[in-house]
Amino acid sequence: MEKQAEYKVSDTRGEGFLPGLAMDFVIFGFHQNQLKILLLEYKNTSLFALPGGFVRINEDLNEAARRTLAERTGLHDIYLEQFYTFGDLGRYDPEPMRAIMQGKGLTPTDDHWLLRRFVTVGYYALLDFTKASPIPDALADHCEWWELSSLPTLMQDHRYIVEKALDTLRANLDRMLGLASLLPETFTMGELQSLYETILGQKLHRSGFQRKMLSLDVLERIEKKYSGGAHKAPYLYRFQTGA
Amino acid sequence: MEKQAEYKVSDTRGEGFLPGLAMDFVIFGFHQNQLKILLLEYKNTSLFALPGGFVRINEDLNEAARRTLAERTGLHDIYLEQFYTFGDLGRYDPEPMRAIMQGKGLTPTDDHWLLRRFVTVGYYALLDFTKASPIPDALADHCEWWELSSLPTLMQDHRYIVEKALDTLRANLDRMLGLASLLPETFTMGELQSLYETILGQKLHRSGFQRKMLSLDVLERIEKKYSGGAHKAPYLYRFQTGA
Repeated sequence: MEKQAEYKVSDTRGEGFLPGLAMDFVIFGFHQNQLKILLLEYKNTSLFALPGGFVRINEDLNEAARRTLAERTGLHDIYLEQFYTFGDLGRYDPEPMRAIMQGKGLTPTDDHWLLRRFVTVGYYALLDFTKASPIPDALADHCEWWELSSLPTLMQDHRYIVEKALDTLRANLDRMLGLASLLPETFTMGELQSLYETILGQKLHRSGFQRKMLSLDVLERIEKKYSGGAHKAPYLYRFQTGA
Repeated sequence: MEKQAEYKVSDTRGEGFLPGLAMDFVIFGFHQNQLKILLLEYKNTSLFALPGGFVRINEDLNEAARRTLAERTGLHDIYLEQFYTFGDLGRYDPEPMRAIMQGKGLTPTDDHWLLRRFVTVGYYALLDFTKASPIPDALADHCEWWELSSLPTLMQDHRYIVEKALDTLRANLDRMLGLASLLPETFTMGELQSLYETILGQKLHRSGFQRKMLSLDVLERIEKKYSGGAHKAPYLYRFQTGA
């Protein structure tokens, strides 16, 4: 079932929306050593893009982000974090927008609001892709998870936006309490290390990783239970509540 | 000598500028245990504000930031970093802008572009305030360094913007290579700790601080030279080049 797009591309003036301001979403999905991101494919265009949207004149910017992400992907209640606002002149390229509108059977005039220069606020989120089933909206044929290592060519500067989001995700990894939702309730140090390695895209030294994680003071070690002869069973940890 | 403001407040339509998009700058100044920020006081209004500006339709957002900071404060070649984009409806308040224009002898109509809702991109920088002498532009009486602990009431949501910038500065402290410009070429661990304590606004444990700093792998210890009987002279460090 098709969902209604949140704005009418047939409205030339973009009434009801802040002019020149967009949002784009880099939704990272993690599960068992795989890191993916969510992409739309626009109808009849072969154009791949990040989900994005526009801000209504009567809503907060961050509220607009949550609303449009839900409208375009079907993903509700996602915690989105801003990471950068993209405003280079070089990102201005009306042709993909024109193609998207033509793909819907419209013939926009040159002064159409969606063909003007936009500054876009980048948001990202990190979730378990096995627990999130995206649904495309009326503008897109597909809304799917793509392996980060094999992305298709993305429209405009969206590839650059992905790289910048990835830089931020990696730099903030130690501070992300949201990681808890990507692991089982209790986990081994090896499972935590695997999550880090997948997101960082590189192998880490086991002893250095363990030392660093313990020094962050956010993990709680579960008392080892008697488990028959399994003397080598690894310790289990969980995130401290309130950490 | 008064500098020319970068836009004509007498132009009702704001021609040549991106509509609805502003920038605000939180310029932190550090020197010997003091942390300050740069504020403007607008003419005939008693309104205190962060320096800010607007983006020309033919320039990059980040370029606009450097240009307007220079125009409004006289500070050139400052490395500015984005930290957050503020877009709450609650920040919309046309009255201060109206007062600023009236302070310049203008009577803006209600549809004046500067009285509309703005989303603002926040930038911050950290520099040595003894090496930066700000100059007010034509709109402001004063452009001065204020102790962070005794700021005057700021217009609109500027106080919130300062707090958000401070959060970012503190969270990023370990990653800021720009810290080198705030210390002498060689410095003691105590001097580095003092910088951290001033910016974090709290005392740190000496041994834990030293251990953490050394583990970051960005400091180089200078070989101790023979210095008579001064056996207790502390080690000197410098930042590794290329670190």
